Amino acid sequence: VGSTRSGSDFLHLDLDEAPRGGRAEWLASRIRSAILDGRLGTGARLPATRALCADLGVSRGVVTEAYRRLADDGLIAGGGRRGTVVISGFAVTTATATGGIGTPTPTSATGTHTGAAGRPVGRRGSTAVPADGPGSARHDRPPRPLGAPPDPDTFYAMRIADATIDLTPGVPDLARFPRAAWLRAERVVLRDAPAGMLGYGDPRGALPLRTAVAEWVARYRGIRVAPDDVVIVAGVAQALGLLARVLPVHGIRDIAVEDPGSLGTRQVIQEWGMTATPVAVDDEGVQVSRLVASGLPALLATPAHQFPLGVVLSGSRRHELGSWLRDGGLLLEDDYDSEHRYDRPPVPALASVVPQRVCYAGSVSKVLAPALRIGWLIVPAGIRADVIAAKRLVDLGNAVLPQLVLAHLMESGVLERHLRAVRRRHRARRDAMVDAVARHLPCARVHGAAAGLHLTVTTPGVDDAAVASAALDHGVKVQPLSWHRVAPGEPGLVLGYAARTASEIEDGVAVLARCVRAARAG
Amino acid sequence: VGSTRSGSDFLHLDLDEAPRGGRAEWLASRIRSAILDGRLGTGARLPATRALCADLGVSRGVVTEAYRRLADDGLIAGGGRRGTVVISGFAVTTATATGGIGTPTPTSATGTHTGAAGRPVGRRGSTAVPADGPGSARHDRPPRPLGAPPDPDTFYAMRIADATIDLTPGVPDLARFPRAAWLRAERVVLRDAPAGMLGYGDPRGALPLRTAVAEWVARYRGIRVAPDDVVIVAGVAQALGLLARVLPVHGIRDIAVEDPGSLGTRQVIQEWGMTATPVAVDDEGVQVSRLVASGLPALLATPAHQFPLGVVLSGSRRHELGSWLRDGGLLLEDDYDSEHRYDRPPVPALASVVPQRVCYAGSVSKVLAPALRIGWLIVPAGIRADVIAAKRLVDLGNAVLPQLVLAHLMESGVLERHLRAVRRRHRARRDAMVDAVARHLPCARVHGAAAGLHLTVTTPGVDDAAVASAALDHGVKVQPLSWHRVAPGEPGLVLGYAARTASEIEDGVAVLARCVRAARAG
Repeated sequence: VGSTRSGSDFLHLDLDEAPRGGRAEWLASRIRSAILDGRLGTGARLPATRALCADLGVSRGVVTEAYRRLADDGLIAGGGRRGTVVISGFAVTTATATGGIGTPTPTSATGTHTGAAGRPVGRRGSTAVPADGPGSARHDRPPRPLGAPPDPDTFYAMRIADATIDLTPGVPDLARFPRAAWLRAERVVLRDAPAGMLGYGDPRGALPLRTAVAEWVARYRGIRVAPDDVVIVAGVAQALGLLARVLPVHGIRDIAVEDPGSLGTRQVIQEWGMTATPVAVDDEGVQVSRLVASGLPALLATPAHQFPLGVVLSGSRRHELGSWLRDGGLLLEDDYDSEHRYDRPPVPALASVVPQRVCYAGSVSKVLAPALRIGWLIVPAGIRADVIAAKRLVDLGNAVLPQLVLAHLMESGVLERHLRAVRRRHRARRDAMVDAVARHLPCARVHGAAAGLHLTVTTPGVDDAAVASAALDHGVKVQPLSWHRVAPGEPGLVLGYAARTASEIEDGVAVLARCVRAARAG
Repeated sequence: VGSTRSGSDFLHLDLDEAPRGGRAEWLASRIRSAILDGRLGTGARLPATRALCADLGVSRGVVTEAYRRLADDGLIAGGGRRGTVVISGFAVTTATATGGIGTPTPTSATGTHTGAAGRPVGRRGSTAVPADGPGSARHDRPPRPLGAPPDPDTFYAMRIADATIDLTPGVPDLARFPRAAWLRAERVVLRDAPAGMLGYGDPRGALPLRTAVAEWVARYRGIRVAPDDVVIVAGVAQALGLLARVLPVHGIRDIAVEDPGSLGTRQVIQEWGMTATPVAVDDEGVQVSRLVASGLPALLATPAHQFPLGVVLSGSRRHELGSWLRDGGLLLEDDYDSEHRYDRPPVPALASVVPQRVCYAGSVSKVLAPALRIGWLIVPAGIRADVIAAKRLVDLGNAVLPQLVLAHLMESGVLERHLRAVRRRHRARRDAMVDAVARHLPCARVHGAAAGLHLTVTTPGVDDAAVASAALDHGVKVQPLSWHRVAPGEPGLVLGYAARTASEIEDGVAVLARCVRAARAG
């Protein structure tokens, strides 16, 4: 766990591509291409030179020289309050296909797994653990269904329940929410927004945010999309719900899901009446050959950072998946935490490679805060009208004021600076957790620590649900890996670190270690 | 149209009940009852004496004396920044039944009407109209399906499309949105809200807003509900969607709707897969005898101010409807604009009378702005858990920051003051429209002008859809009454006035009058 150069999110620049003596020209040409192919439109802001040279691990002169050449070409202009911006780019246009997206391959529902809801859900008895945890045991809590994966209501209730040390995965450092910047932006929005913006609006969302999101995904995820083709949603969970409403109309009722994979997203799919069929994940990510063999028409996956194992889909698997998509498969790409990475280069979204076969969903839940309930969904042209109609039906579109505030934060560079700042903090907390695991749980294997807001430890031979239950009795909340599995597999614990301080992490892992030892002994 | 005393929203106080010589004691006793029966809980704020005596048309001494007696009783305390507040009320508790709500009567689907979507939708040819309207004809617009009720997509697109003078009903005066107060409240929220509020929250909504809403509906709508039993939703449209998802699980798939009645809500019900069966509305409101005869298990209605005719459900009909509810019927009460009334006393919500058989939905769309996407849903205990689960499924709960801001505005009295201010403006605009109609359309009959944000004019013998189409060609947007009808009936126009200035209203109605004359001549 070190401070190695991690590459740039901006355009996914990789210094290894650059000839040693020609880095400035290489950088200029990469940015020039992005301007000419529309990824950076007129008005797009380039990173500050200091930030970009830190990301790339080059001297400041390299970036300055590249920017100077682009300015000489009349492509960018520097200085002023907005920094360096593109001045002669093209308007962003889409190149997505307009055909239907119906089922390409017959569905053989081998191993279909439906309805986690309704499973027997039992309360585990107390497991004997030492009584010196940071929180005292509280016996007046409602029954907790650790042991089997909880039903959707219970899973959600557990997710939001209080704990002394909450290591639930998927929550960023909420103490660092940029409150002052949010208020400043809100002041501007309330001063400038025309009254008409306060009426019934476009169900796709407010145009300023759709524009900011189109620029954001172009810069950071390589996706080219017109603002008119972005749908603002209330987070990735809603995006999946909209797709689950729309896809059956297009002949898709059965979706492959990663195993292990997020219990929450699997439940969303199933509650909307679709079937979720598990496909195994290994060290290279989802096993595409099994997906192909299943004949399933669609896959819900997290290619950039697999949940919960943290695998990045390998190059050969990406290639296989690309072929499957071009053959008519459909990917639901849950890009849930692509913004958070520490020791590895960024991975472009699959939606940037085969856009006409990918439904791409992202949100600010893990960049800013889940309580904002703002995300985005970008889908192939063939189902776009249906997705927009579904969004209109569920809520007539997101609330407008937070959309305009967020657009302002994205457009002004505040969000990018915030992301850089929280990434440093998250990395330190990640390091604290890796250290604590190494000291307290030396036998556990750590997975997926190079990115994200959580890591997973596998603990062979231990009943992970019993450990999680015992830990909760001592005030420490974690999710057992078994909850996220369909087929049986190695037990473990999914540990969020981003929202907790180093000392909370230390204390929490110490409690977990005692619970693991007690479970082994029991 | 005058400035007659209109009664008080607060507790629905009616001075006619008071003995002439004992008004102060009468007022004190009414407020005392509300404190003792829980409608006004500890901390609830009483209206300013000046506002209350204006509402009631009594001298200030009457209110001051009543407040003094309550203070002597130790029930309220006056002065300070928060005004006069209740200091020894009870915690609000619910008295709703806990049983199921399943279908009580067999359903005979007489006259069932399903699926407005999919109807043939044709473009009307241009109707000849004089060319002196305020907007010039624009022939590059997309085809408009006036003539038949438009399908849901088109209806929504028309609703949000621009027009020179937009008289679409259901939008308040957005220019008066309290921007400064909103920003001040947001500053307080961002300063005080704990970081934990920014995580994944309770799908019912933020507790401060649920508390404020429980107090609001107790004060203004007579409804007693505990904050834990309020579900914050993204407006009434979402509330209906949640109910349409939940009710079929409880055996209710067919809903009676008012005819004429809102096309938009009928479409929401149908898009979620329920059937909407029309029941005729007359001058006393929905014809309950026909509802009873239909055998339908549920009714979606607007008892306080029927949309679009503006009728208040008469006393005898309320009695009949109450009996039907006690016999096992279920009411979906869309209380869409109960806050706006001018020349008539307030009408309590049906949910205050038979709470265990009413699903009550309200929102701030017509009090503040539709773009806030905040409303509330209060349902019988038997379906509450299902409604909360449905809300979790569609979006995991509303965004938290606007909820906290709104709670602050409600709790501090800002919203109440805003409502008083916009009511004055709305009344003046209502008067302007009534005047303009009297002058330009002397043959038209005006309906429902005593309350709300719109009125309806009936124009016998005129093709209302043709008139609306011609008016739109001249920049004036209105809804033809026929869109909101299922069975054929008198034609007319539904005219929103709240969002437009008096001169816009004058110009708009003049254009409509020319279009009506042209349609009659043609």
